[in-house]
Amino acid sequence: MRNKKKTTIKDIASVLNISPAAVSKALNDDSRISAKTKEAVKKVAKDLNYQPNHLASALRKGKSNLVGVIVPRTNSNFFSSVIQNIEEVLNKEGYNIIITQSNESYKKECSNIDTLLFTQVDGIIASMANETVKLDYFEKVKSKGIPLILFDRGENDLNVDYIGINDYDSSHMIVEHLVQQGCKRIAHIGGYRHTRIFNNRIRGYIDAIKKHHLPLDEALLIESSLTIEDGREKMTQLLALENRPDAVYVAGDYAALGSLQVLNENNINIPNDIALVGFGNEPFTSMVTPTISSIDQHSTEIGKQAALTFLERVNNPEIKQTLNKKILDAELIVRDSSNVKK
Amino acid sequence: MRNKKKTTIKDIASVLNISPAAVSKALNDDSRISAKTKEAVKKVAKDLNYQPNHLASALRKGKSNLVGVIVPRTNSNFFSSVIQNIEEVLNKEGYNIIITQSNESYKKECSNIDTLLFTQVDGIIASMANETVKLDYFEKVKSKGIPLILFDRGENDLNVDYIGINDYDSSHMIVEHLVQQGCKRIAHIGGYRHTRIFNNRIRGYIDAIKKHHLPLDEALLIESSLTIEDGREKMTQLLALENRPDAVYVAGDYAALGSLQVLNENNINIPNDIALVGFGNEPFTSMVTPTISSIDQHSTEIGKQAALTFLERVNNPEIKQTLNKKILDAELIVRDSSNVKK
Repeated sequence: MRNKKKTTIKDIASVLNISPAAVSKALNDDSRISAKTKEAVKKVAKDLNYQPNHLASALRKGKSNLVGVIVPRTNSNFFSSVIQNIEEVLNKEGYNIIITQSNESYKKECSNIDTLLFTQVDGIIASMANETVKLDYFEKVKSKGIPLILFDRGENDLNVDYIGINDYDSSHMIVEHLVQQGCKRIAHIGGYRHTRIFNNRIRGYIDAIKKHHLPLDEALLIESSLTIEDGREKMTQLLALENRPDAVYVAGDYAALGSLQVLNENNINIPNDIALVGFGNEPFTSMVTPTISSIDQHSTEIGKQAALTFLERVNNPEIKQTLNKKILDAELIVRDSSNVKK
Repeated sequence: MRNKKKTTIKDIASVLNISPAAVSKALNDDSRISAKTKEAVKKVAKDLNYQPNHLASALRKGKSNLVGVIVPRTNSNFFSSVIQNIEEVLNKEGYNIIITQSNESYKKECSNIDTLLFTQVDGIIASMANETVKLDYFEKVKSKGIPLILFDRGENDLNVDYIGINDYDSSHMIVEHLVQQGCKRIAHIGGYRHTRIFNNRIRGYIDAIKKHHLPLDEALLIESSLTIEDGREKMTQLLALENRPDAVYVAGDYAALGSLQVLNENNINIPNDIALVGFGNEPFTSMVTPTISSIDQHSTEIGKQAALTFLERVNNPEIKQTLNKKILDAELIVRDSSNVKK
């Protein structure tokens, strides 16, 4: 560490015995300062290793060209692909992004928001933590008057821009597919109901089950944190039922992977004894044995749309913050885990 | 947007016809300001929706309690696990972390460094992009006098703290293991030589091959970008050889996965025809068929050590920046892809 304390404009001013304002003007080539003084100031600045503070300048201008991104975790192909696409669009427009992760914790998410506001981001693009039910911190972002765009896990009550897929329809698509495969007792390992996307998947599942006059059994509808471990636990729970399901639709690929492990360990034939469908189209779904059918969430399109929505907002601040909701159609990728051979 | 322009201390000062300095003192409960004035200032601040600027205050104090992390990509279990562990240690000490990714691009990495310096981070923990050969931007961090800690992909020439595993020994371990399995013609799909860790793996491979008096054939040593696609390409290249290898050691798990796909597609028996070993112990190595042997890089320990080294530096700025190098021993996890049944 060469200089423990940073050189400030004041230090330069005191060496030359002029005012800090004059130093600042000289460094910015202000015409009110003589060429001689400018030269002297720049020499002292160099001698003292003065580093101009760009952030202070951004604070004055009110623009940092930074966009903050909050995701539940980076270690998910869906989220990292969304980030990748946000970054590609925004980099071209001169914005850099900084990423924080909530680890599905509300407290951590609040701290992420504080950190991003602290760094003077020009906007925030976020997907909410599983735990989040209170929206006070997101309201804080809104009250700052910077664009807030939510994706995947959003919340209508906030009345901000949102981009996601049609979760309700996705569940219909999955149940429809399983019925076509001959499945008659379809279980759902779902996410937490207080998260809108998971609630929509659950609602879609229930309505599709009713539509096809299949049994709507309470024991077949389970809420889960959707981790690998919890997927294992919930599948074990389903296998313990006297009347087992012949298909399980899991609302997340990681939990679907845990479920698959338990089925394989118990020598249960997938898909003939129990068919399995996941959600998210994580790359490992096509690597495991059997490969897992899953819903593709269009991460590329979601990332691009989120970035474009931010640009639209930041370039047109006069447009009132009315809800801009973009809902994309999802796609079911059928693989071995639900391809029943009769 | 309720207030397009933020309320400043000057606005409050002009409403009350007092000096901005007096407003600032009042807001900070300075004893030199009367209770009556303080009350008036706080009322006007509230009425105008004044938001105190914590960043400006951090600028004055010279401390943001932020640590910047730069990784080649977040979509890797190794890097996201390191980040997770850095975060756990630093959160407890009151630091928040912000993450940027270089996508293996030197230009992007430079922009990441600028972004992090802009946000006034108290330190940077980084793993270098594949492309990086010029170290000018990392020198810039050093010249700012804030701690810079490198992990995994570091560079001794920078003379900063570094935490990583013993790559040279890891290669020895792998070659040793393959020799024990009866392999006699061992190829290496390595990373770029200009990246020290990959160069160390290549040196380790060459020395181990010599030690065991095996053929050191130029055609068996290939440099790669280590993506899945490139792993496919390089394995295809090896299969086209007249004299094929009976084992391939790939310097990264993603490329090992691409290699495995090509072997499976060509109905080559793994490990009996060709044994395969990867590097990184990504979770998918234990999910695919056959499971892939790999080197565990101790991401938990690397993350913790990187965070602890930052804390040591930031809490003891008087200690000179001499190189603190922590090299951990790696571990080989043997799975089906190299478990030759004779």
